[in-house]
Amino acid sequence: MKLLVIGGVAAGMSAASKLKRVNKDAEVVVYEKGGFLSYGACGLPYYVSGENNDYTKMIARTQEQFTNMGIQTFLHHEVVKVVPDKKQVLVKDLKNNKLFIDQYDKLMISTGTSPIIPPFPGIQLSNIHGLKTLEDGIRLQEVASRPDIKDVVIVGGGYIGIEVAEAMLHLGKNVRVVELSDRILKTFDKEVTDLAEKELLNHGTKLNLGEKVETFLGQEKVEAVKTDQGTYKADLVLLSIGVKPATSFLDGSGIHLASNGAVIIDREMRTNIQDIYSAGDCAQVYHKVMEENTFIPLGTNANKCGRIAGANIAGSHQKYIGTLGSAAIKVCNLEMGRTGLSEEEAKNLAIDYTTVFVKSADHPGYYPNQTPIWIKLICEKRSRRILGAQSIGQKGAVLRIDVFAVAIHNNMTADELGMLDLCYAPPFAGVWDAVHIAANAVK
Amino acid sequence: MKLLVIGGVAAGMSAASKLKRVNKDAEVVVYEKGGFLSYGACGLPYYVSGENNDYTKMIARTQEQFTNMGIQTFLHHEVVKVVPDKKQVLVKDLKNNKLFIDQYDKLMISTGTSPIIPPFPGIQLSNIHGLKTLEDGIRLQEVASRPDIKDVVIVGGGYIGIEVAEAMLHLGKNVRVVELSDRILKTFDKEVTDLAEKELLNHGTKLNLGEKVETFLGQEKVEAVKTDQGTYKADLVLLSIGVKPATSFLDGSGIHLASNGAVIIDREMRTNIQDIYSAGDCAQVYHKVMEENTFIPLGTNANKCGRIAGANIAGSHQKYIGTLGSAAIKVCNLEMGRTGLSEEEAKNLAIDYTTVFVKSADHPGYYPNQTPIWIKLICEKRSRRILGAQSIGQKGAVLRIDVFAVAIHNNMTADELGMLDLCYAPPFAGVWDAVHIAANAVK
Repeated sequence: MKLLVIGGVAAGMSAASKLKRVNKDAEVVVYEKGGFLSYGACGLPYYVSGENNDYTKMIARTQEQFTNMGIQTFLHHEVVKVVPDKKQVLVKDLKNNKLFIDQYDKLMISTGTSPIIPPFPGIQLSNIHGLKTLEDGIRLQEVASRPDIKDVVIVGGGYIGIEVAEAMLHLGKNVRVVELSDRILKTFDKEVTDLAEKELLNHGTKLNLGEKVETFLGQEKVEAVKTDQGTYKADLVLLSIGVKPATSFLDGSGIHLASNGAVIIDREMRTNIQDIYSAGDCAQVYHKVMEENTFIPLGTNANKCGRIAGANIAGSHQKYIGTLGSAAIKVCNLEMGRTGLSEEEAKNLAIDYTTVFVKSADHPGYYPNQTPIWIKLICEKRSRRILGAQSIGQKGAVLRIDVFAVAIHNNMTADELGMLDLCYAPPFAGVWDAVHIAANAVK
Repeated sequence: MKLLVIGGVAAGMSAASKLKRVNKDAEVVVYEKGGFLSYGACGLPYYVSGENNDYTKMIARTQEQFTNMGIQTFLHHEVVKVVPDKKQVLVKDLKNNKLFIDQYDKLMISTGTSPIIPPFPGIQLSNIHGLKTLEDGIRLQEVASRPDIKDVVIVGGGYIGIEVAEAMLHLGKNVRVVELSDRILKTFDKEVTDLAEKELLNHGTKLNLGEKVETFLGQEKVEAVKTDQGTYKADLVLLSIGVKPATSFLDGSGIHLASNGAVIIDREMRTNIQDIYSAGDCAQVYHKVMEENTFIPLGTNANKCGRIAGANIAGSHQKYIGTLGSAAIKVCNLEMGRTGLSEEEAKNLAIDYTTVFVKSADHPGYYPNQTPIWIKLICEKRSRRILGAQSIGQKGAVLRIDVFAVAIHNNMTADELGMLDLCYAPPFAGVWDAVHIAANAVK
């Protein structure tokens, strides 16, 4: 049996590795468009900031390690076409631009996403960067480390944009975030993003919210960003306005894609075509609370779904228990975490919900260095079931969201979680922990 | 309706407050033997160490605040007898040694525990202290802060003993822990306590394990502790060998007590006698995993069960969802947490179990300051259900135990938790968090 994997980062290499662990006789061939396999792209902002000065630390396994596992990997090889009827793919060797055909018994599609590049005039100027691949990170770090790069404009206030904003603050740059929407990090609700925005402002970031980029100005290099409301000096621009599934090569293959281009899969990672599997950021993912597929391009889901795909390619019938949309980000001295539905998502799903937003603390005041934690809960009104949780604070805010994640996964009510026996010791938590206090505040 | 509460610390004041919130017309009278109400006794070691220099911070609500809530509280008043047939109690005013009778409609017994004082010769010498009440803490802090107090011997290596050991290290003392058993903190398993013992040794604590105290030597003040294996200089001794339910005043009342003296209650905090409730350290508590009553004298259960008692006294029928035996302690630079069954408990219950002990890390190596986390899991073999979890590490070890607590409460298998969508961001967790890695390691 020969598995052919298209895309060798998170989901692809998880599937390849899992298959090899279960069936060491399987032939596994991986084509990766880029120059690196199996890296933690979420670490890129901390390489750019210099907090990590060795990009190889982000690489979970090297090409050599995969070779030793019996997995054949080809870098700089792009699959440009899939022909399910013949169980063939058309591959382009990007180093010499030669095309060739390969065969598969089972196919895994794990090509991830492509950044959305808006057609702004001036987009071709130098010093305008994205940050998706390890190569992007290496290039951005090189430019950002130069002392003549002083004014950095970040276009897009999502996870990557805000993490790079912090990285640039760390490097001593003048940082401006331009965001089309009226707030940053929109997977969180406004109560929480208000605090995050305040934190960024306190650290000297300029936030231009509700502002639309129109043009990048400059000769060879970018010199300024012009929006509908002003023109801002820029020695360096990060473009981070979003991503889309990298699935255009599947057009005409017969593989069903969602309207945004994500591969439609079932909970066993099977596409509509026999022997073709998909997982990771290029595909949809089943959401436990929504009880339907959605698009959440995060490494958490990619690694888990990739591993499940590998097991099922080997003959198993594992089902993904579902994503909760759990995510976290550090914003200067604050931690932020979220899981389940946001209020906006609950509203869009026409759920009759109730919310609380509660300030408490990471531990009692009689132990030194108490810090505040804010928790927002979204609950179903009728059942009092917790649907979503968000937190922000200096210490322990994110790990508490994991507590809510397990509770939401198990359909717990606020009342039951409010009485659950969590750990208590003065350095870590109060006798009624911040989790209890929020849960017991639900009206 | 008049509620009479015996003991005004955690469970008692939780019950009193809850009743008053639900039924503001209820008459509530509290008799407390000590001089303080409603304090967080778990904060005492940090007052002794000087990390908190204001003991009033440990007091959740003052007598005046309770008075303003309409709760009548009497300090230094000990209830010495309960007569259920007449719905009467006999109260001793400890300031003038006068006895008087009071009546109740509903009675709440929340007297907590008494320290076990062993009949060692020399026990009457000065500078031998316990640490249970706020008064104990104030006295111990006074003595420990004196520079002539250099050698401190702690008898008993449970939570209090180890927390005070750390407090004494903090004060620059020579610290020795003498423990009868072959290891400290026996609610944790050996893999975990081995690491805790190493941490204490590395910080200069002397550990005399498997050693039995025989005599305290000295003239007026304690000067040395003699055990079956040696004699150790001591300017100050902390006795912390355990506690027992403070229920001897109930002898002959007809209220059913367990063999250790704990009040037997149902999940609604009712004793065997109508209109008499009990909760907190003086009573048993229902254990979710054991599916039976047990004795776990911790503030976590006391506060929750007290609140439930108050609700039920007001006419409700709330049931405690059950303790998990969750507990946490800081040992020098390490956090330790536990929930559910230990291996020893599983063995005693004759469960067919399997365990793993896994070292991973709090976050990926490509973000600065990665620290190790060790997690031990105890799972039922047949069902793969997680029964217990323990952790030790420098950062995030305890809050991860809360994640396991919710999983255990919900009867989750290791496999399901191993795929659950927890938060991932480099400063906080890996894409496969320490929780996943431990769960997925279960064979």
